[in-house]
Amino acid sequence: MDLTHFNNDGHARMVDVSSKQPTAREAVAFSSILLNTEAFKIVTQGNSKKGDVLAVAQVAGIMAAKRTSDIIPMCHQINITGVDISFTPDEVSSTIGITATVHSKGETGVEMEALTAVSVTALTIYDMCKAVQRDIEIRSIRLLKKKGGKSGDFTYDI
Amino acid sequence: MDLTHFNNDGHARMVDVSSKQPTAREAVAFSSILLNTEAFKIVTQGNSKKGDVLAVAQVAGIMAAKRTSDIIPMCHQINITGVDISFTPDEVSSTIGITATVHSKGETGVEMEALTAVSVTALTIYDMCKAVQRDIEIRSIRLLKKKGGKSGDFTYDI
Amino acid sequence: MDLTHFNNDGHARMVDVSSKQPTAREAVAFSSILLNTEAFKIVTQGNSKKGDVLAVAQVAGIMAAKRTSDIIPMCHQINITGVDISFTPDEVSSTIGITATVHSKGETGVEMEALTAVSVTALTIYDMCKAVQRDIEIRSIRLLKKKGGKSGDFTYDI
Amino acid sequence: MDLTHFNNDGHARMVDVSSKQPTAREAVAFSSILLNTEAFKIVTQGNSKKGDVLAVAQVAGIMAAKRTSDIIPMCHQINITGVDISFTPDEVSSTIGITATVHSKGETGVEMEALTAVSVTALTIYDMCKAVQRDIEIRSIRLLKKKGGKSGDFTYDI
Amino acid sequence: MDLTHFNNDGHARMVDVSSKQPTAREAVAFSSILLNTEAFKIVTQGNSKKGDVLAVAQVAGIMAAKRTSDIIPMCHQINITGVDISFTPDEVSSTIGITATVHSKGETGVEMEALTAVSVTALTIYDMCKAVQRDIEIRSIRLLKKKGGKSGDFTYDI
Amino acid sequence: MDLTHFNNDGHARMVDVSSKQPTAREAVAFSSILLNTEAFKIVTQGNSKKGDVLAVAQVAGIMAAKRTSDIIPMCHQINITGVDISFTPDEVSSTIGITATVHSKGETGVEMEALTAVSVTALTIYDMCKAVQRDIEIRSIRLLKKKGGKSGDFTYDI
Repeated sequence: MDLTHFNNDGHARMVDVSSKQPTAREAVAFSSILLNTEAFKIVTQGNSKKGDVLAVAQVAGIMAAKRTSDIIPMCHQINITGVDISFTPDEVSSTIGITATVHSKGETGVEMEALTAVSVTALTIYDMCKAVQRDIEIRSIRLLKKKGGKSGDFTYDI
Repeated sequence: MDLTHFNNDGHARMVDVSSKQPTAREAVAFSSILLNTEAFKIVTQGNSKKGDVLAVAQVAGIMAAKRTSDIIPMCHQINITGVDISFTPDEVSSTIGITATVHSKGETGVEMEALTAVSVTALTIYDMCKAVQRDIEIRSIRLLKKKGGKSGDFTYDI
Repeated sequence: MDLTHFNNDGHARMVDVSSKQPTAREAVAFSSILLNTEAFKIVTQGNSKKGDVLAVAQVAGIMAAKRTSDIIPMCHQINITGVDISFTPDEVSSTIGITATVHSKGETGVEMEALTAVSVTALTIYDMCKAVQRDIEIRSIRLLKKKGGKSGDFTYDI
Repeated sequence: MDLTHFNNDGHARMVDVSSKQPTAREAVAFSSILLNTEAFKIVTQGNSKKGDVLAVAQVAGIMAAKRTSDIIPMCHQINITGVDISFTPDEVSSTIGITATVHSKGETGVEMEALTAVSVTALTIYDMCKAVQRDIEIRSIRLLKKKGGKSGDFTYDI
Repeated sequence: MDLTHFNNDGHARMVDVSSKQPTAREAVAFSSILLNTEAFKIVTQGNSKKGDVLAVAQVAGIMAAKRTSDIIPMCHQINITGVDISFTPDEVSSTIGITATVHSKGETGVEMEALTAVSVTALTIYDMCKAVQRDIEIRSIRLLKKKGGKSGDFTYDI
Repeated sequence: MDLTHFNNDGHARMVDVSSKQPTAREAVAFSSILLNTEAFKIVTQGNSKKGDVLAVAQVAGIMAAKRTSDIIPMCHQINITGVDISFTPDEVSSTIGITATVHSKGETGVEMEALTAVSVTALTIYDMCKAVQRDIEIRSIRLLKKKGGKSGDFTYDI
């Protein structure tokens, strides 16, 4: 099977989706960031005097979702109709789970928009915590769910 | 310990680095992408008729490194003096390792630039392979090494 | 009443407008910039040897209108169908009035696009005049009119 | 007196500052946004269940400061070394004061960066409150203070 | 005949296309870059140890096509549905021909997107070869073909 | 001779210029646009009721020069210290000559910035005239002069 992102000369192209019909699209992506005890405390004590790391990270994730086609070369431009990012901190594993849900009505899916959102959200948490921890790790960026489009719905098999 | 990224009101700020001296900086970051056999083959057969996924991904990573301060809210603008991205495909684990080395001369480090580079490189590989595999996973984005600046050198403890 | 821009966790989100119907939209915004006599003369003598400050400011305003969703975090991406910016210099008050009219066909209004256009137009006039006047003031950025969408038409009550 | 932003043909140019020496720069700008009682309450109850409008606005202002030369046509590119935005809500006048302090070391001042920061911060508050109030007004965008550079220090005469 | 890009005051505007119907659009643009023997060899030996200049140039061209309305002031924002760039190296004339085909469904044509794509593709080849040749020339950027829209189809008369 | 823009694996990289010393840089680039009689008249009658095509084109060229490293993948980020664009209309050949002069103090030259400026200036003239002429041609984009840096001065041999 060939990649559709290449033309007959083997050169990259942005696949023509003109003939596709616009449908309602949804994609849910996930990432996780592993912090030490100190960084985990600071991040989860947001909305406090120390400032809200997650509020900043979320704005970054939403803005990045809108800019996906400007960052990922072969991505089509998509006017996103909604983005929602939520966090699931887990004290036992000292991780912050990040889930982004993206909606649109268009010819192509919004997987890359959701994946870009969780990646940039995690990178922003990293940036704001790197003064207190130098060996942070971002883990497991993946798609959880995808709805709409010809290729059908998809749920990541955990 | 408080995060330097917040002011006395608990609001985010971009830390003032005016009084820091510019020094030579280096940061090396790593990410890894887990593919199935089919996607792994297509990617590692780059420079072939099927097109070069890694060449596209690398351009994306380099361009993203330059745009880091535009993507990560509290990152300082840095004129990067060099970026190099290399790949280490491993057939046994069916993963592509991605390493980005970033150089600059400036008041702040280039960790976020290197981390953004490997993240966007991985996301671009994801985008170009998602037609052949729907459960790709990006794993383990982290800093490998950091040189220059007051906080001293750092090597990630594996 | 709650702000629609926040989710149940109190985190910002970009509101989902998927279920809204696209309609013809119009928004008219206004700003005003107060100059001293010297700066006022230079600006209103545009199309002359001294160069056309307003021509540059207008290009800046139009380009900013198109980039609104990239500047204002929770704004939806909108493909604007038209932007027109006009100026009303008033010698008595030594002010330049700036009016931007923005059109689109979409799920959400274009108020922010018109407001961003007049703000950036005014900032550009400021930038080009700051060598001759250091205490310029931008005054009264507001919406004049809004048409289309479920919330109905609106005219600013002066 | 002529505007330095135009060449001999009367065409706009970006003034050559090559011969200027880099010095420490500071600029402080101010804007104010007039809200009704309901919107004022929602904004000042930030860090609460309803979400933090000011946290989002501040991120927007900081990101816009970094992008000033991309928005204002004749502005030089400046690597900002620090940005801090603070708010002074006043219940009596029902206004939120916005102050941005920008630092850099460079050949040109950072007035436009500080002015762009307060403008975009105000526009973001506008955007997030426009669902509860339709006649918001942004008032009085101006420079408060400027330090560094050949033209000397400046304090806005109130 | 007047230019539609100006309003009654003689100021530039982005023409209102709200009343136009979206139709399928295609534009094909061409440019050519003249290299010396050494540079020509290096570029046409792409997919080799020396690296693939054309692969990088093509990614740049595709990304630029998506960013056209951000670069050309009066261009409408268009969600491109496909971009394909191909190369025709000619050893006799020592030129690389660059052809970009752009598709969309919209109210306005995609000529500028195709022309921007071939221009940036050529500039990228220039950038990557300027270390081996200093007098490179980009020649003859023009439209080859245009389909869709009220003004009808067009083929460049060679 | 190898291209410095590729690493040992044959992958593109942004060359490390850390060890280079910043010097004063200048680059002058040229492009030419061929118009028919009608378009030529409209463009050269700028600063008139019909609007000033060249004023808009010049702003576009200056803004593009600042964004060069964001458009051309392997270009280093450079803080330009000045840009000046001038026009030489020639009625006999019905062409508009475009010359851009760019200055900076940095580790690398500003050839690409000057070339990008003249390309985008020409594309903007094209965009604003395409309603009156459909077979416009942009011709001969090339470097005229280059000063500063290790490789020495250069003047294009006409």
